[in-house]
Amino acid sequence: MAEQGKKKLVEAITPMEIDFARWYTDVVINAELVEYTSVKGCLVIRPYGYAIWEHMQRIMDGMFKATGHENVCMPMFIPESLLQKEKDHVAGFAPEVAWVTHGGAEKLEERLCVRPTSETLFCEHYAHIVQSWRDLPKLYNQWVSVVRWEKTTRPFLRTREFLWQEGHTIHATAKEAIAETERMLGVYQTFFEETLAIPVVTGAKTESDKFAGAVTTLALEALMHDGKALQVGTSHYFGDGFAKAFGIQYTGKDNQLVHAFQTSWGTTTRMIGAVIMAHGDDSGLVLPPAVAPAQVVVIPIAAQKAGVMDTANTLTARLQSFCRAKIDASDNSPGWKFAQHEMQGVPIRLEIGPRDIEQQQCVLVRRDTRGKTIVPLAELEAVIPQMLQDVHDSLYAKALANQQNHTYRCTSLDEIRQTLRDNGDGFVYAMWCGDEACEDSVKEATGVGSRCIPYAQEQIAPTCVCCGKPAKHMVCWAKAY
Amino acid sequence: MAEQGKKKLVEAITPMEIDFARWYTDVVINAELVEYTSVKGCLVIRPYGYAIWEHMQRIMDGMFKATGHENVCMPMFIPESLLQKEKDHVAGFAPEVAWVTHGGAEKLEERLCVRPTSETLFCEHYAHIVQSWRDLPKLYNQWVSVVRWEKTTRPFLRTREFLWQEGHTIHATAKEAIAETERMLGVYQTFFEETLAIPVVTGAKTESDKFAGAVTTLALEALMHDGKALQVGTSHYFGDGFAKAFGIQYTGKDNQLVHAFQTSWGTTTRMIGAVIMAHGDDSGLVLPPAVAPAQVVVIPIAAQKAGVMDTANTLTARLQSFCRAKIDASDNSPGWKFAQHEMQGVPIRLEIGPRDIEQQQCVLVRRDTRGKTIVPLAELEAVIPQMLQDVHDSLYAKALANQQNHTYRCTSLDEIRQTLRDNGDGFVYAMWCGDEACEDSVKEATGVGSRCIPYAQEQIAPTCVCCGKPAKHMVCWAKAY
Repeated sequence: MAEQGKKKLVEAITPMEIDFARWYTDVVINAELVEYTSVKGCLVIRPYGYAIWEHMQRIMDGMFKATGHENVCMPMFIPESLLQKEKDHVAGFAPEVAWVTHGGAEKLEERLCVRPTSETLFCEHYAHIVQSWRDLPKLYNQWVSVVRWEKTTRPFLRTREFLWQEGHTIHATAKEAIAETERMLGVYQTFFEETLAIPVVTGAKTESDKFAGAVTTLALEALMHDGKALQVGTSHYFGDGFAKAFGIQYTGKDNQLVHAFQTSWGTTTRMIGAVIMAHGDDSGLVLPPAVAPAQVVVIPIAAQKAGVMDTANTLTARLQSFCRAKIDASDNSPGWKFAQHEMQGVPIRLEIGPRDIEQQQCVLVRRDTRGKTIVPLAELEAVIPQMLQDVHDSLYAKALANQQNHTYRCTSLDEIRQTLRDNGDGFVYAMWCGDEACEDSVKEATGVGSRCIPYAQEQIAPTCVCCGKPAKHMVCWAKAY
Repeated sequence: MAEQGKKKLVEAITPMEIDFARWYTDVVINAELVEYTSVKGCLVIRPYGYAIWEHMQRIMDGMFKATGHENVCMPMFIPESLLQKEKDHVAGFAPEVAWVTHGGAEKLEERLCVRPTSETLFCEHYAHIVQSWRDLPKLYNQWVSVVRWEKTTRPFLRTREFLWQEGHTIHATAKEAIAETERMLGVYQTFFEETLAIPVVTGAKTESDKFAGAVTTLALEALMHDGKALQVGTSHYFGDGFAKAFGIQYTGKDNQLVHAFQTSWGTTTRMIGAVIMAHGDDSGLVLPPAVAPAQVVVIPIAAQKAGVMDTANTLTARLQSFCRAKIDASDNSPGWKFAQHEMQGVPIRLEIGPRDIEQQQCVLVRRDTRGKTIVPLAELEAVIPQMLQDVHDSLYAKALANQQNHTYRCTSLDEIRQTLRDNGDGFVYAMWCGDEACEDSVKEATGVGSRCIPYAQEQIAPTCVCCGKPAKHMVCWAKAY
């Protein structure tokens, strides 16, 4: 029975090389991260998936609070008239919102949309509470779910409802607001590198790719195993556009009434998708230790033998004083357990059997490298934290190497096409004149779209990769999720 | 300017005795817990209010996890056909749900309601994932918001959208499920007593007052300052009714296919309302230390004098190593600050000025009793934690005394009316025959409805307070929110 279970579990994963999209779906289902419901694009986030999200939330929320932000909670409903107050914003979002038209049996006087994002709600609130320079800045964030009525959906990457955090801040000056968008981009970058072990390219979106209503949109792009880019976070500067649309004015120290300046920034459960596609392998998930629900799983070997379960339980309790450890005390076979916890990406497996107990040692197996180490039980307090750090570091190094190996510098459209054909998808760095027509032409001719204008600019060529006119920026181009 | 602000702040509160409902609204607005939006019954929970909720969440979530529960996240939308699967449940909720009829410009094939509660979603999920006795129990909880299209709304007490946690568990046997409903009622009771310092009466709801679809509903009732009861939590046993409606069956150890047994239990942001109305006074909020965003506020006196701000800042940092402390370094006057932090219910105010510094001491003022103590700075590590415990204990003792002083034992409808007229509203303990007609008559004749059949039964009389037939239970009756 158990062995049959194991076989089923392993067979269920499509190898990445065969079909990356199916591999991804197999992992999210078999690792028990999500389950489908009868509403397309609306998923159940199961305990294991939600525990990963809770760790992300806890760590990121700490970073927000350390930078002076406070959490609030806005309502989920936005009256149609409120959504319409900022014209670019409504044009961007109205086509994809869910509309509530009835409360009980009664038709509403005005329809309400379920928030696709909450700029309009924060603006309405700021108009109430901001009067004087003393009221500024307000550095707010909220952890909620939002709804966008997408046609094509995929677990974590694009769902009709998704969990996220949205920061919304308001400042006395443009300078402060711009500094805030950059600070939060930096917070996100630190989080991706130090918590998720994912390297990112950061930069500004081009005009055509900005958030609806933003003056500038900064973004973080991460490269997935299949060579596609995933936008994993954004930070927007609004200038005083929303403040003008919503009448948010304050009296300055000089007694003049002026408009305030705003930002917003967000990351979503899509980060779980990024972890899967940046670190996963053909055996399933590979979790960065910082967000792994269990960092160590203890597997008793020959559990029926005298003393094994007792020792394993005592050991687990001991581990719990310095890391997140759990024991798999089920009656499945060790082989089945190995496969299951590999599928769920537990960073370290600790095996302990009668012979180990005799010799006062155990076997540690790293999920990422599958490297085995025999360790004296007395040394676990020193070895495990170091091994968790090593797992993090090597996940990051591997993801960075993958990104670097799949970052190409090209000076012509032909070279882009040829490079992608020869080396597979990836980030293409190429120069751009700043003209939207060229941006479109690159995508049409090569399949890669502009992801961002990286902060780390390189002078690859003097001229635009498309039209040959003088180049303004180096752009990072890629196929994207 | 500042003194004018202070006056405004203090004037803004209607005394409880004059108008309790206005006092309540004045407190929630002036303590900056919430702000209204343009959608009736949908409020902004502001940073101070949300921080209280975060502490409630953190503590309660720890209690759930310690009792083996896992968090998940269900979608917010329920298809109409899914809501209709359990007939009592749909009858209870359909009249008050918000309906989504359009996604973007397109009309949906089937309307979706915004969850008013998530039994149907959990049932659909359990039908997918529960097959064998090995899959049981599932002990799930989620922290989300829900929507009920109420006609009359009040901040925290009854809003169209509110935040809550909903536990949903599924078990192999009725016995286990019943034990779970009782365990969670106990967890809630502990939370109310030990975290919120609020005594509760626990018991079962009568038939007419059960949750839609439940076999039994257990509830916690707390008495507010005005003598009205507030239902602050419920725990429901469903038997196998939902399992039958949704086809949730599992194969037992004996290889028989049988239906599973379920529970659900919930508490909401209404708990913030309970804290306000159980502990507040005419100066505003009085917060139990466990959920106070700041437990101590440091107020520098004569802050412009040399050394005061430095000492106050150093002291605040020192306090932060053993409690939640903040400094009010604004340029408002001390008097204005006193009023503001009283309004926000900060448990302890620490005043420190030049003379205090000279004598290496400070002044501690308790919010609840306004008692002042002069304390040597060297003793703060010992004094403050003890004082916070004392504040908690005396809040609880005061609330319990209030409940006991307003709990009346009556044996006739006349006595109920007379008692309430003479002593004010409160809990009325009186016997009941079990007949719904009598339950209705008591309410009609006296204004108090049945709140619950308390676990702690007393034999007040042998016969029903209404009809004189043999009594089955002692009921707790009260006017209720």
